[in-house]
Amino acid sequence: MRERSWWGWGWADNALADSECVQLARGLPGMPSKPKRIPDPAALELPAIRLRPPAAVAEFCTTTPLARAAHTYGKAYRDVVRALAGRFERCPDLVAYPRTEGEIVAVLDWAGGVGAAVVPYGGGSSVVGGVEYRGELPWVCVDLSRLNQVLEIDRTSRAARVHCGILGPALEDRLRPHGLTLRHFPQSFEFSSLGGWLATRAGGHYSTTTTHIDDFVESLRVVTPRGISESRRLPGSGAGPSPDRLLLGSEGILGILTEAWMRLQDRPAHRASAAVTFPDFADGIAAVRAIVQSGLSPAGCRLLDAGEAALAGAARCGESVLILGFESPAHPVLAPRDAAVEIARMHGGTVRPNQDGADIVETWRSGFLRMPYLRDALARTGTVVETFETATTWDRLLKLYSEVHTEVAAAVERVCGAPGIVNCRLTHVYADGAAPYFTVLAPGRPGSELAMWDDIKAAASEVLDRHRATITHHHAVGRDHRPGYDRQRPDLFAEALRAVKKTVDPQGILNPGVLLD
Amino acid sequence: MRERSWWGWGWADNALADSECVQLARGLPGMPSKPKRIPDPAALELPAIRLRPPAAVAEFCTTTPLARAAHTYGKAYRDVVRALAGRFERCPDLVAYPRTEGEIVAVLDWAGGVGAAVVPYGGGSSVVGGVEYRGELPWVCVDLSRLNQVLEIDRTSRAARVHCGILGPALEDRLRPHGLTLRHFPQSFEFSSLGGWLATRAGGHYSTTTTHIDDFVESLRVVTPRGISESRRLPGSGAGPSPDRLLLGSEGILGILTEAWMRLQDRPAHRASAAVTFPDFADGIAAVRAIVQSGLSPAGCRLLDAGEAALAGAARCGESVLILGFESPAHPVLAPRDAAVEIARMHGGTVRPNQDGADIVETWRSGFLRMPYLRDALARTGTVVETFETATTWDRLLKLYSEVHTEVAAAVERVCGAPGIVNCRLTHVYADGAAPYFTVLAPGRPGSELAMWDDIKAAASEVLDRHRATITHHHAVGRDHRPGYDRQRPDLFAEALRAVKKTVDPQGILNPGVLLD
Repeated sequence: MRERSWWGWGWADNALADSECVQLARGLPGMPSKPKRIPDPAALELPAIRLRPPAAVAEFCTTTPLARAAHTYGKAYRDVVRALAGRFERCPDLVAYPRTEGEIVAVLDWAGGVGAAVVPYGGGSSVVGGVEYRGELPWVCVDLSRLNQVLEIDRTSRAARVHCGILGPALEDRLRPHGLTLRHFPQSFEFSSLGGWLATRAGGHYSTTTTHIDDFVESLRVVTPRGISESRRLPGSGAGPSPDRLLLGSEGILGILTEAWMRLQDRPAHRASAAVTFPDFADGIAAVRAIVQSGLSPAGCRLLDAGEAALAGAARCGESVLILGFESPAHPVLAPRDAAVEIARMHGGTVRPNQDGADIVETWRSGFLRMPYLRDALARTGTVVETFETATTWDRLLKLYSEVHTEVAAAVERVCGAPGIVNCRLTHVYADGAAPYFTVLAPGRPGSELAMWDDIKAAASEVLDRHRATITHHHAVGRDHRPGYDRQRPDLFAEALRAVKKTVDPQGILNPGVLLD
Repeated sequence: MRERSWWGWGWADNALADSECVQLARGLPGMPSKPKRIPDPAALELPAIRLRPPAAVAEFCTTTPLARAAHTYGKAYRDVVRALAGRFERCPDLVAYPRTEGEIVAVLDWAGGVGAAVVPYGGGSSVVGGVEYRGELPWVCVDLSRLNQVLEIDRTSRAARVHCGILGPALEDRLRPHGLTLRHFPQSFEFSSLGGWLATRAGGHYSTTTTHIDDFVESLRVVTPRGISESRRLPGSGAGPSPDRLLLGSEGILGILTEAWMRLQDRPAHRASAAVTFPDFADGIAAVRAIVQSGLSPAGCRLLDAGEAALAGAARCGESVLILGFESPAHPVLAPRDAAVEIARMHGGTVRPNQDGADIVETWRSGFLRMPYLRDALARTGTVVETFETATTWDRLLKLYSEVHTEVAAAVERVCGAPGIVNCRLTHVYADGAAPYFTVLAPGRPGSELAMWDDIKAAASEVLDRHRATITHHHAVGRDHRPGYDRQRPDLFAEALRAVKKTVDPQGILNPGVLLD
């Protein structure tokens, strides 16, 4: 069986070799070049185990050092840095792998009884401290990877009842023989779970229409400390506030999602794409806005600023590039593709010649999935390398972009003592706004990387808050985004959410520190 | 100024004359033909007023008998029957017309202090007892019609900040000069408010994509007894459970909505339509399913069963008819219209010849808006005439339709002692299911109409529940749908909602009896 990395992203054998790390860093000015050693997992120093579950729970739990270490963090840059430093002071006391809802109930009952915290864990791909308990209680990580079946397929309604612990590829593998797809492809797709997508309101790879997982939900089933709850499976309803929408984005603080009826789609049969360059990012923004406001819904509509385009090798120096992709299961998409390209041209865009459309998107996609491995390699060279993202309305977008760029670049220079790279792409676009996604690369000082990144991130969050943009469009809140989230959500809503939490989790054992105190 | 009807739907001068009522009923077998007299509003017997507000509140309140009577009920069949019978035992003690948020705060503070109930009232078009207080407390109806401005338009992002008391036509009038539209046209459009749409998760006239108001919301502002709360205006977000989705569908129990930032659209410039007949409703259902699942999004996609088509004069006897309409602000829609028609043909449909496309939709639309006036006229003839609606997934739809038809027809015959009419149309369609809308017409016994309808409705609700369909797709829950809603929503969600209610409305003064006890 292929092995997952316990310290970084994805498959262990996909991690870059030392020589590749050096090679990668060589391209970046001012970066140190000797990669950090990956610690020997057998030699990790982990704290003593404080929990002794009863036999009925113990039989699906493990306390091996490797499992405890691998379940300590998510997969943010901060997490990789800490794992590489061998820092696992707050690792889980044990990791549970329930095979049934009954076993989840047993864990919750036992944990409630002994005063342990419980952190639900899907694929473990959180980049916001969502699966990392930071309190003082003993804690159990509940890894849902054994709840991984497609339980029922309704071909007529194009929907499926699915276990929430299933990872992206397994889900798609089971749907493919039926000609169906969930068509939800976040960057973490290979290593994130349906339950994780639902709990964090994950954003998929597609740029328009159903960007978040939310709209694919027919019904949810959840295990809480107060019992199991399930909503009715419906294509649409107007009966009171949606029960599902209270769970979507609840990040494990209200219960553990076990099953969902999900809306599916036919697999696309028609595709067309194009790449258009713009001398100026502002022109690209205007073009993208005109495209989505005209009613076109490109599956892919990614606008890369000059820095991002150069880094991706997607455009000449100084140019922004718009990568457009259209898809449909039943209808030709050349006409909408051409209509979008024409709008882009009217906004000063130049269609990139001699480029096969399909390749542009494929090249983008494979680079996209490889990105986290490169991130890990750069982290090993001591580079500060992380992303953050937001969303705002069109009227504020350009100013937000430019101030984030200026102020984060200034923060990088202040914190790192040298200039770094601050790039941006629009990942998701709406008729009323867009979601810009920023990448930061800067030379780190050994041992200070976390503090440096926290400083830079604080500067970024400050700009977002000043513009009343969201602290996160699709990375979720977790623990890292709490200061920004606490400024963003209405106080009265936080009080209401606290009241809901107290109702379904009276002892407050579920994922403490996420969303609420 | 044109006058609103105090006992029935819409404009007073649009109500059918006595002779027209007789004419209308003559077409229906077994119906009594003498229309009930409309009571003299000056002679109504209303209960004594139990509330004396302080001067600061009194100055925007009224206690005139006509205002109190007109604010006693919504506009369901049950409401019209009771109004015609002069039954106003539970009318509001007074009607407040706040002009500012400050005045809403003053009403809530005062009502909380004296233990009065508060019922928010937008256009008053509820058909589910949503604005009708049935408890024993003195109560204030808060009519929001003076909060009726478009406050700000952001042309770039195509969004507007709007007062929640504005009615449909006023809103569209203010947006039209900017080339914009909210494009939300429920049947109640002329006499329902933005706040009412939001509080009830109203369904618009369009059949696909954004069927409910929910998806048009950027942010909401609400006055609660615990203070004012406002969400951040965003095109998309993944930061925790959506605060707005907790208020959408809250039907006035959590607060009074005062302002919303709403997403707008360009006005459509391209239109195409078609009517297709089917020998069998089941074929029509299969065609509609194939059309939406192919990725086409007709703005109008209404499938009328044979009875409904005959009543609307839209098809030959025994035929079902599908009315298709496509719209776009920027792109021609003949191709998608033709693609939809081709799918319908492949499912046994016949395109209706010699019919101008645009007229089909226009004819439908004007009949649609006239329907409530006909309903009132029939109610005056003693006819039991009401509608109910639901939604279910495609796999269950045909069976649900057929059992509702059989069992409700049987209930009508049992209750009324004579056969009635039970018709159906699909009003909203989704890739995974549809919303069937049923109309019932049956001969009533004078004085027993309410009990008769309640019996029939109970039979209908029983079938819906048995099929796990929703008790309401877009009419909301109010007080009438409480039994069905209480079976539908997860118990734990009801507990959570109660906890939220206690947080924002600790004394429970807001719209008691709706959604919760």
